[in-house]
Formats: sequence, C-alpha cells, structure tokens
Amino acid sequence: MKDCLIHAKTFARIAPRLKGLEDKLNIIVMDDNGVFSKASNGEVVTEPKPEIAFGNADAFFGPHVRTFILAVAGGGRLDWFQSAAAGIENPGLVMIGKAANRYTTNHKQSEAMGEWALWQALDYFKLGAAHRAQQDARTWKRLDMREIRGSKWLIIGFGSIGASTGRRVMALGGEVTGIRRTQGLAEGADRIVPTEALMAELPKADVVLLCAPHTPETEGMANADFFAAMRPDALFMNLGRGALVDEKALLAALDKGRPGHAALDVTCVEPLPADDPLWSHPRITITPHDSSETEGTVAGADDTFLDNLARYLGGQPLRHLVDKAEFD
Amino acid sequence: MKDCLIHAKTFARIAPRLKGLEDKLNIIVMDDNGVFSKASNGEVVTEPKPEIAFGNADAFFGPHVRTFILAVAGGGRLDWFQSAAAGIENPGLVMIGKAANRYTTNHKQSEAMGEWALWQALDYFKLGAAHRAQQDARTWKRLDMREIRGSKWLIIGFGSIGASTGRRVMALGGEVTGIRRTQGLAEGADRIVPTEALMAELPKADVVLLCAPHTPETEGMANADFFAAMRPDALFMNLGRGALVDEKALLAALDKGRPGHAALDVTCVEPLPADDPLWSHPRITITPHDSSETEGTVAGADDTFLDNLARYLGGQPLRHLVDKAEFD
Repeated sequence: MKDCLIHAKTFARIAPRLKGLEDKLNIIVMDDNGVFSKASNGEVVTEPKPEIAFGNADAFFGPHVRTFILAVAGGGRLDWFQSAAAGIENPGLVMIGKAANRYTTNHKQSEAMGEWALWQALDYFKLGAAHRAQQDARTWKRLDMREIRGSKWLIIGFGSIGASTGRRVMALGGEVTGIRRTQGLAEGADRIVPTEALMAELPKADVVLLCAPHTPETEGMANADFFAAMRPDALFMNLGRGALVDEKALLAALDKGRPGHAALDVTCVEPLPADDPLWSHPRITITPHDSSETEGTVAGADDTFLDNLARYLGGQPLRHLVDKAEFD
Repeated sequence: MKDCLIHAKTFARIAPRLKGLEDKLNIIVMDDNGVFSKASNGEVVTEPKPEIAFGNADAFFGPHVRTFILAVAGGGRLDWFQSAAAGIENPGLVMIGKAANRYTTNHKQSEAMGEWALWQALDYFKLGAAHRAQQDARTWKRLDMREIRGSKWLIIGFGSIGASTGRRVMALGGEVTGIRRTQGLAEGADRIVPTEALMAELPKADVVLLCAPHTPETEGMANADFFAAMRPDALFMNLGRGALVDEKALLAALDKGRPGHAALDVTCVEPLPADDPLWSHPRITITPHDSSETEGTVAGADDTFLDNLARYLGGQPLRHLVDKAEFD
C-alpha cells in the first residue's frame, strides 16, 4: 500500500482509470482549499506523507500550490514524483526533486505548443494584424500573404516541442532544420545540425523557434548578433524560457527592422510587469506562458502519470526519469 | 504558330519555361497600361486576336482587366482559355467561356486557402481576440485553449479546397467529414457523407467550412436553421461564395449565441460596403476575398497553364476542362 498524493480535480478525472488499484494505492487528495483527505472514505488527513505524488496544473495553478509542494517535498517519504512539466528549474520543483528518490517529467504538452507555434506563424504569414486593422477601418483591400508551405524553419533546441512543431510544419509542406547537440535523424526535422551551425543557419530561416532548455550556455543566447543574423521578414518565437532572450537586444533589433516580428510565450520576468516595453511593441505578440493550456495537455499529463504508475507498481523502469544530479 | 495572350508580368516570370516553343507560339503580352506587344520583338499589337490566352491575377487584378477580357473574348479566334480561377460564374469569365472553344480552370489556389482555414481555426481555438485584448491591457492571465488535434470538422462542398484543408486538419490530428454528392473515399476526409446528411452532421462539428460552388441549390443554404443546428462553441467559415450565406440570419444567429464565431473570406456584396454590419460584429472575422493571395498560388497557376500548354501543343487532353454547357 503506497500513499499517493494527487489533486482532488485530478482524482475526479482519473478515478475510473485507477479502478483495481485499491489494494495497492492509498490515494490522498488535496482540494482547492488546501485540505487533504483520503479518496477512499473522505477522511481528513492532517499530515500527508506521500510516497508517490503527481504534480500537475490542478495543483500548481490552484490556490494552494505552496501547501501542495510542502506536503510533497516535506513528508520525508517521497519515493517517486511525477511532474506534469517538462522543465525542472522552478524552485518548487527543485525542492521536490531534491526530496524525491525518483523524479519524472512529462512532455505531452508539446502537442499544444506545436499548435501555438503554427498559430503564431500563420498569423504572421497571413498578415493578421494588417487584416484586423483593415476590418476595423472597414477597408476591403486584398493583401499578399505568405505560406507555411515552402517556408524554412529553424528550431533551436530540438526536443519534444521541436519535434511536435516540426512534424506539423513538415505536414504542411514546410522545411525544418533542428539544432541540437546529438546529431542524427529526428522525427519532425528534415535535418539536424549541431549547435555550432547556429549563426550560419539563422539567415536562411523564415521562422526561428527557440525551445532550448535554460542552462548557463543558453542564457541570453538570442542576443544582438543572433537577431542581426535573421532575415528582415523572419519571425522569431520563444517557447523555451524567457532567460534565453536578451529582451533589450530584441527590442532594439525589431526597431532596426530584423527580425520582422517576435512571438513570445515566455519572458524574463513572469508575470511580465505592466510597465514592460515588450507589451506595447507593435511587432511583438505576447501570450502569458499558456501555450500548453489545453484539455489535451491535461489529458496528456494524466496519461503520462498513469503509464508511469503502472510501470512503478509493476517494477518496470519509469519513463522520462531525471538524473538526481540535475537538482544539485 | 499560335497567337497566345498573357500578361507581361506573367511572361517575365515564366519566359525561361517557354524556351524552345518559339516556333510554336507567338506570345503577345498586355502590360499594366493595357498596351499589347509581341514578346519576341516588342512590336506593338493593336488588335490581338489570340487563339490561346491565360487569364490570371496579373491580368484580372491589374488596372486593365476590361481591356484584357475584351481582347480575349472579342478576337473571334479563341481556341483555348486557361483561367487561374476555380469558379466560372464571374461575368467576364462567362463571356470568355462562351467565346472559347475550350476553357480550363485551375485549383492550385486551394493550398493557400487550406492554410487560411487553419489560420482562422487556430485564431479561434487559441483565443486570439482575448489574448490580444489582454496584451493591450498588459494583463498576464493564462487562458484555456482548444486544439485542432481531436477537433471535428465538417467540410461542405468537398472539392479541392475541402481536400486541401482536410489533409492539413488530418495531419494535425483532427477528424474530417466531407459533404458532397459523389460518395466514396476522398483524400483529406475521414469520411464522405451525402448532402442529405447536412442537418445531422452540423451539431457534431467544432468547425464548419463552407466551400460549395454557388448554384441555385446552394444559394442561401447557410440559413437560420443551419446556424441553429451548430454548436455554440463552433466556428463557421465561408471560403465558397458569399451568396451561400444568409448574412442577416448569420448576424442573428451569432447574437443568439451559435455558432461561436464566423470567419468569412467572401460576402454577398464584394467589396463589402463600409456600412455593412458584418464589418463590426465582434464575433465575425472578415478577410477581403484574398485567402488565396500568395506567391504559391501565382506559381501554381503558372504550373497549371504550362502543364496544359504542353498538353495542348502535344494534342493531349487538357486538365480541368469545363463543359461548354456550363456557360449557357
């Protein structure tokens, strides 16, 4: 019998899929008031000390995220934590990562993020802003648009987001170059090139998508030189972390005319302060780090948890296991 | 030697691909001043009487469209006309169709139109309007979005636009039902249903795309009953002809809450008059019949013309030949 902590909303959703595990799992749920209770009989639990925990949007975007993190990381018995996130650099996740014997990530959110990238590219190629301005002015004037078909994409940090985006772009007739350390074939890319090829590849791309992890090497990598190497009609997108971008350099680059536009789902400071100049630049589109916010993403994280739960209970290796050293 | 009339801009683009045909074709070009001349030596031609003509965007969206149409239809020698359009109901095209011995259409613009449909669906599913309002207000608040993946599309009038859109939607994980008279399998659709199934299919669709031709049977087919059968969160799109839609019924339906949004590339009166209420409805997106306006579409029409030209000169059957009776 393992004590397993999940959010009450998550339990409501996946309960039918947990049937048959009643003798293996003691499910403890936390509700949106931060109250813990046994799922089996509703009995309140004052000090949950989970051995297993699943931390997803229900818990992390709910009102009692702190209570949840402290219960997970502070119980002293945490054997396995399944995160719904791909990244591990959030302080709460680091705290959990240090406490957990095993820590696994989830990458199913990359499907929704691939759609976000396509949305932004289409809105840029199809002159969304100009079309909307025309509609506001009641002006009927045909505009020359561009196509995803035949467009060249450079995806920097080619992992699950890159593959998800690249598969979609290739299906629409675009050409995808991925940059990552490990060479070789990759699904969703026509070719993979090494990190050193970055500056040579930037001038060729109609769309540059940044989705590298945040490390000392990648911090501020999208700087003045990076933007100066882009085409004036190219789109820059960031689905990685805000810290990958030198935001002052981006603003200056857009004012100098290259790239043509930037679409950012992440910013250096989040939430982005109301007085930040990124908000009002006419050639920047901001979304509030919500590119993955879909029902499909929630369902994908549930799938990842349930798949790994079956592996955990069956003594098989867990998927997307993070090296403990990463949390040091 | 056949006299062949094309626009000067078209000739500038395809001249290299006409090499070797100098002894078979006497190319006459019309420039943007409406002046005709021989492509071979620049000699002005006062009365072009073409046997072959190619009517594309260069000619039809240029300043001398009337001059071009009259030269094509009025020469009395027209053996074959290649249109860059899919439809044939424009009065100028009907005049040419009556004059031509053979008349062929082009359907390569459906690629760009498929991207337009995807753009509009993504902007609706990803809450483009709400995200832009948030950016204007400098508000950082995550929004729950929908996905193309798993969405259900109903495509009414499943021809080249339907196939082009459907292929893209299926590649992104959506499910496509096409409505057309001819039953059987179709590329870009999971299933094809007959016209009679319309009212039963409407309530199932997240996205309804109208791309039927304009005929007495289809005129005003998107009426009050049609919209009342749609889901409140569904998107209605029209890439066919404005006359397929009862625009008053659409406005009333949107005000009653179903469908959720309409994206229209075509309207009953074009250009849409400045005082038309369609312009300012908060749940209508208007583009000025330009969904196909891309370099890819221009290149596609060139390809269609050159392919049919080789067939014409080689005595083979032409592609996309229109039944002469259609112009009566």
